[in-house]
Amino acid sequence: MVESRRKRSWWGWGWVDAAATDAERAELVARLPPGWAADPVPVPRIADLALRPPRIVPPGSLAPVCSTDPEDRAGHTYGKSYRDVVRALAGDLPNPPDLVARPRTEADVIDLLDWACSAGVAVIPYGGGSSVVGGVEYRGGGHDAVLSMDLTGLDQVLEVDRISRAARIQAGALGPVLERQLGGHGLTLRHFPQSFEFSTLGGWLATRAGGHYATRHTHIDDFVESLRVVTPVGVSESRRLPASGAGPSPDRLFLGSEGAIGVITEAWLRVMDRPVHKASAGVRFDTFGRALAGVRAIAQSGLEPSNCRLLDAAEAAINAGVTDGSCLLVLGFESADHPVDTALDRALRLATDHGGTYRRVSTRDGSDQPDAVDAWRSAFLRMPYLRDTLARLGVIVETFETACTWDRAERLCEEVRAEVGAAIGRLCRGPGIVTCRLTHVYPDGVAPYFTVLAKGRSGAEVSIWDEIKSASSEALMRLGATITHHHAVGRDHKRWYERQRPDPFGAALRAVKKSLDPSGILNPGVLFH
Amino acid sequence: MVESRRKRSWWGWGWVDAAATDAERAELVARLPPGWAADPVPVPRIADLALRPPRIVPPGSLAPVCSTDPEDRAGHTYGKSYRDVVRALAGDLPNPPDLVARPRTEADVIDLLDWACSAGVAVIPYGGGSSVVGGVEYRGGGHDAVLSMDLTGLDQVLEVDRISRAARIQAGALGPVLERQLGGHGLTLRHFPQSFEFSTLGGWLATRAGGHYATRHTHIDDFVESLRVVTPVGVSESRRLPASGAGPSPDRLFLGSEGAIGVITEAWLRVMDRPVHKASAGVRFDTFGRALAGVRAIAQSGLEPSNCRLLDAAEAAINAGVTDGSCLLVLGFESADHPVDTALDRALRLATDHGGTYRRVSTRDGSDQPDAVDAWRSAFLRMPYLRDTLARLGVIVETFETACTWDRAERLCEEVRAEVGAAIGRLCRGPGIVTCRLTHVYPDGVAPYFTVLAKGRSGAEVSIWDEIKSASSEALMRLGATITHHHAVGRDHKRWYERQRPDPFGAALRAVKKSLDPSGILNPGVLFH
Repeated sequence: MVESRRKRSWWGWGWVDAAATDAERAELVARLPPGWAADPVPVPRIADLALRPPRIVPPGSLAPVCSTDPEDRAGHTYGKSYRDVVRALAGDLPNPPDLVARPRTEADVIDLLDWACSAGVAVIPYGGGSSVVGGVEYRGGGHDAVLSMDLTGLDQVLEVDRISRAARIQAGALGPVLERQLGGHGLTLRHFPQSFEFSTLGGWLATRAGGHYATRHTHIDDFVESLRVVTPVGVSESRRLPASGAGPSPDRLFLGSEGAIGVITEAWLRVMDRPVHKASAGVRFDTFGRALAGVRAIAQSGLEPSNCRLLDAAEAAINAGVTDGSCLLVLGFESADHPVDTALDRALRLATDHGGTYRRVSTRDGSDQPDAVDAWRSAFLRMPYLRDTLARLGVIVETFETACTWDRAERLCEEVRAEVGAAIGRLCRGPGIVTCRLTHVYPDGVAPYFTVLAKGRSGAEVSIWDEIKSASSEALMRLGATITHHHAVGRDHKRWYERQRPDPFGAALRAVKKSLDPSGILNPGVLFH
Repeated sequence: MVESRRKRSWWGWGWVDAAATDAERAELVARLPPGWAADPVPVPRIADLALRPPRIVPPGSLAPVCSTDPEDRAGHTYGKSYRDVVRALAGDLPNPPDLVARPRTEADVIDLLDWACSAGVAVIPYGGGSSVVGGVEYRGGGHDAVLSMDLTGLDQVLEVDRISRAARIQAGALGPVLERQLGGHGLTLRHFPQSFEFSTLGGWLATRAGGHYATRHTHIDDFVESLRVVTPVGVSESRRLPASGAGPSPDRLFLGSEGAIGVITEAWLRVMDRPVHKASAGVRFDTFGRALAGVRAIAQSGLEPSNCRLLDAAEAAINAGVTDGSCLLVLGFESADHPVDTALDRALRLATDHGGTYRRVSTRDGSDQPDAVDAWRSAFLRMPYLRDTLARLGVIVETFETACTWDRAERLCEEVRAEVGAAIGRLCRGPGIVTCRLTHVYPDGVAPYFTVLAKGRSGAEVSIWDEIKSASSEALMRLGATITHHHAVGRDHKRWYERQRPDPFGAALRAVKKSLDPSGILNPGVLFH
């Protein structure tokens, strides 16, 4: 199917035509505990939303890039968290953007910002709109109007430096759009977040997105050679450099700034040859504790596997068909230059030293994956669509993630499971499901990712979700973890982020905000306020 | 020899008792072009320096940690650049610090800063004092007095987390001091800048120091789990985390801040097991261009050698005894976990694909090194002492370094050699020597390091050095490189740093400076002003 003709869902994940089928829904319902699934709520019609009329008219020069189409406005009101989906399904959109702008050039971005500054219009930079933390949603701040700046029109790979293996890419390019262009040069950025299809380079940069691979280059930050950012006081462009020690890194100030001090328009990124050598294995462990020890040994070995994803027993059962109560470690190595079997051998030796048992597969093209691993991968990519179906069935779904040092990893996983489980029991009057996987590993720590399922109560979904978010975030803060390893802070995590952020650094960020966005129009409410 | 009893040179590099011997001096003179070496200038006696009397008296509570001893003050007036050594030898110290403070605790640091803020005293944080860029030298700014804050009393490894392989270390620990303490736990930080013996953890962090190893963890930045920084408005302490996506990285603002927004007092750092598997080789190439191509292939292979140091023909001849006009690539792999011979084999294959010829050595303990490599390593560590001897003999010596992407690497090395050579011809009325080595390599670029030797003219050394610095820095800026890959900006590079730094980022940094150091007492004149 030609993607440009496909229609995006305004209320939920992804393509309209890729929504869960009736058969998938029936299968989901059958796997849920009895009594959890209600009748699916209908999707409201755009015409029935009764959006507040736009409160501002753009100047004539900008009119061609501004839309007031109700579906555009509804689709740019929220990100794609469970909380967003539930509110959209309920037709609860009291604060839609007044305008959706789609700049065609960087000059359009500059003109839009100039106008917004002078008119007191809040500007929310919007890439793929996949935020799960309230990152693209205006929640007040006294502005006269709100403009959602959709950057997906800036989607070109502008330049490729084959010698240095780097590419200059516009920030609005969605994952498949930029990979397709790089592919023409035999190159890949090889950054594959779960949201890959529906998130942009600029969104990844602004939120310090984590990719698919478990070690080495875990975040988009690691690929950045230089950034070009339009701020209200001018364009900031760093020099293309492989590394530098000249003062604090300019790029590191904009990475993670979530659109609050500037709009990233392009970046030079390190790209690479496509991997051709691959070897992978599924390793089972009988306890989570032993699995953690095995994973830690691998993480501290210097082997740096591409994949090192540990699913706890519940997650292995639900998503990878592992029915014997084992945890499953998905382990894989890749290289564009040299065979990786020796590295996998050594990693498997470390795993078996800690009680793992494995099945390995080694290929040059990676096509023949172990069954459990393959099952898990399919489920992974399908997950956001199924999440929407669960939301329509009245089931509460939340995912959150963190990172902590190894010394507290096991305790953190246990206590978060227990505390979130207890919160669900209290809020939902019955047990829920809390599963955990490790998505990224480091020599000094790990990034656990939790999935929560619970029976909702009609009309109370948002408040229950908020309470679960609060319980999980409190646990993370108490246990010395981060409020986010790669989902960003947005508005939903801000309360806890402010506790995590050192106070003098907070003062420094507020000073930066004031100097680069003196009118306070950029993504008001996130991060720096 | 017990290091605490050894005496540091107040005017030059390192230990007094390790200065170049008469025999070394004679050998140096013999290797210089005829007529270059003048009679060695004598080292002035402290009593003859006639330092300006201290202009301020510390409050009684701080008196025990403050010194006005003339040798202390003279030794803390400058860093250790050629420019510094020449001025010290000439007895040219018009702006010595009025006080040298040696805090014993972090509370002392806080008290000193509080007093300095109220008394308008400039504070220069001072670690090992090895700056070669004017980083620890007060050059004016209207303060009533100047205090050099020597942090080497804060030198303890406070805590070791063996599970996460991390350690909490005080910022004033010199390289050998912290390695000795970590060694007791079987661990190493494995960060070995050339200044290792005479630079501190805090200095490395504040200047984003580069270490010895060519790939992977090239800068101290990569080892930082969290930082604790005393700023004039409070203590900033980041959470210990293996990674985080929660807003812009707090640590990355302080890394490279060169003491201008706070005094780093401690850090949690990622440490590692000591490597036991080692394999290395010396590879010769007949042209620099072919060597660059071979090194690039290795840098882009994902093999990540520990050493990948390319010496051009002049450098190979002078420092590694390679007399056939070849360039020498020092290539090495290390691991604490697994054999590295396969990796070296593959790297050597890539080198020979580009015309390299090699001699390899593989050991478990690395004791048996190839001759040329060994020769180079000894020369490397001895170099700063010999630099001082050359300075006394009236020879101009400068080293500078940079980084650029691969697409411009060869041109940069050529043009910098040519332009600096031409400047020397003009300034010194005769040819000089300009050599180049690559110290660090990246998939997208490289860090070249240049050494300059020229015949000086008595009394004109500083101005000639300044002109050479200007010629080299102009070339780096024009060619799209960085003003420093790991020597820092300090005061000597500031003019070019301001051209490299994007303007809006400069505005942001000035806002940060104002918010964290409102009295403007911290290392005035570097970086943010």
